[in-house]
Amino acid sequence: MHYPEPISKLIDSFTKLPGIGPKTAVRLAFFVLNMKEDDVLDFGRNLVNAKRKLTHCSVCGHITDKDPCSICSDGHRDQSVICVVQDPKDVIAMERMREFSGLYHVLHGAISPVDGIGPEDISVADLLKRLQDETVQELILATNPNIEGEATSMYISRLVKPTGIKITRIAHGLPVGGDLEYADEITLSKAMEGRREL
Amino acid sequence: MHYPEPISKLIDSFTKLPGIGPKTAVRLAFFVLNMKEDDVLDFGRNLVNAKRKLTHCSVCGHITDKDPCSICSDGHRDQSVICVVQDPKDVIAMERMREFSGLYHVLHGAISPVDGIGPEDISVADLLKRLQDETVQELILATNPNIEGEATSMYISRLVKPTGIKITRIAHGLPVGGDLEYADEITLSKAMEGRREL
Repeated sequence: MHYPEPISKLIDSFTKLPGIGPKTAVRLAFFVLNMKEDDVLDFGRNLVNAKRKLTHCSVCGHITDKDPCSICSDGHRDQSVICVVQDPKDVIAMERMREFSGLYHVLHGAISPVDGIGPEDISVADLLKRLQDETVQELILATNPNIEGEATSMYISRLVKPTGIKITRIAHGLPVGGDLEYADEITLSKAMEGRREL
Repeated sequence: MHYPEPISKLIDSFTKLPGIGPKTAVRLAFFVLNMKEDDVLDFGRNLVNAKRKLTHCSVCGHITDKDPCSICSDGHRDQSVICVVQDPKDVIAMERMREFSGLYHVLHGAISPVDGIGPEDISVADLLKRLQDETVQELILATNPNIEGEATSMYISRLVKPTGIKITRIAHGLPVGGDLEYADEITLSKAMEGRREL
């Protein structure tokens, strides 16, 4: 025998999510059956609203429910610094830090020849357009510290260099709370290379 | 800064599910943003349908989208045996075995004085009613092999004994594929106690 259709469909939906296998999907679906009806209705509505109401900010590319996004339209933020990241989640990670008050630019990816992703597939052209009006004085490249992220940073850095805008790359080194013993050679070598006088 | 409202609401909904912490909820919510719109709409619809369309079978208490459920209304099944389980998920586990062709009775819980759950809180009265018309010849008690499940089995067994219906309890012992070395003492003692001649 199979599950009654309504629940087997729900199990299928859960299975499509990342990291959720068939057993977890069954557990979640049965949990939903025991949830309050209002909570389930909210859940369904939240799913559809998140998908429908959220767009990308036409200025920075961050996800938002109004355009331009709350960061781009916030006059108190420093308009002279743009931090370039790969993903909207990176903006959120940066904002969690509560120390950066400049603007962002979300590339939506990184250059990766292996996966067939070239500079024209990520939002580099939009970034260059934003640099034209001369308010921006520093570009912080905060792409991921891996091959694709480095390549993307190098590419953007070469393109922007001629404009005279200051270009910086976030530091590589040991994560705080980490253990030197377990650090990989490349991280350690970057940490040595980036050492600073105390 | 916070997440845009539609996504923070979706994150909240995911966080309510069991085993899903704040970080996983964020990951799932962002995954939903990148899903095809149709899949998201289906997901939302499946959630609401599962909650709204599924009820409990008025005969056996299993979850179903029609009443009586497909098992109770299947004339090919052996009407003389009822297997008593705690939860609809147990019915599904049993059916997966494809060997039992009798009927089920779902108690929706087990007697647990510690949690304040007495016999009147689970569906024992309904079970007794089903036993009155004399078609049932065997009652298989398949409650969980733990204190609550054992107590429930004992309780039902004592109630039903006077009617003369055969009452059996599923076997305790080593799980197939298990390792004797890692078996706990109680399981091992049950396995010895239940040994059979070859």
